[in-house]
Amino acid sequence: MDRIPILKLGSALLVTIQVDMHDRLAIALEEDLTAKIAATAAKGVLIDISALEIVDSFIGRMLDNIAAVSRVLDAETVVVGMRPAVAITLVELGLSLPGVKTALNVERGMALISRRIDADAVSRGELDDRYDE
Amino acid sequence: MDRIPILKLGSALLVTIQVDMHDRLAIALEEDLTAKIAATAAKGVLIDISALEIVDSFIGRMLDNIAAVSRVLDAETVVVGMRPAVAITLVELGLSLPGVKTALNVERGMALISRRIDADAVSRGELDDRYDE
Repeated sequence: MDRIPILKLGSALLVTIQVDMHDRLAIALEEDLTAKIAATAAKGVLIDISALEIVDSFIGRMLDNIAAVSRVLDAETVVVGMRPAVAITLVELGLSLPGVKTALNVERGMALISRRIDADAVSRGELDDRYDE
Repeated sequence: MDRIPILKLGSALLVTIQVDMHDRLAIALEEDLTAKIAATAAKGVLIDISALEIVDSFIGRMLDNIAAVSRVLDAETVVVGMRPAVAITLVELGLSLPGVKTALNVERGMALISRRIDADAVSRGELDDRYDE
């Protein structure tokens, strides 16, 4: 396995992490993601880590990196499906992932991204007529 | 890795196959999927195989099995993201997957499942008012 598939779902991209990440795979994922954000004008990136029983500092940094790069490309990163034990480990490692939003599952993550798209549209005045009545 | 994550997306379940399937993993996936279809009353199962460069008769049979079991539970199986080379290999193996629907990508697969849900609703008369005008 040399690539992690990136699935397009509406205005968001979905990545499911299932395999052990190593350097080359993490770099390939970051490259593929940035290319796909640019190509599809995606507004959000959902990273599902429900399959991961352990998140070490390497994966923590990778998530942080992806979130930082996505933000520069105007896409929001939402990590979904984190197990409670993983959350505890992350905080113990001193990795509270400040740049990364989290949601319980993919559906809530999608809802979060949809709300952000709506908010952006409102702030640009595109949805003004929605609130005219 | 002992389990492949199953993500709920609206009325459908999404599975991304990224790792080499072996007997135990395939059986676990079938069990998890049937349990989740029953628990969520899902109407469709999307199986993304865009990461697979090779689909052998074992995976072909697994897809066929999943489709058959899902059908009994009133959910439609759509295999998405199949590479052209994989399609050629499948036919050469004599596996044309008669019980499995296919779609180019996840979005089209979702659209296929949505259309089926609408068609079911119409045949039950629930959407009659849509067509009254």
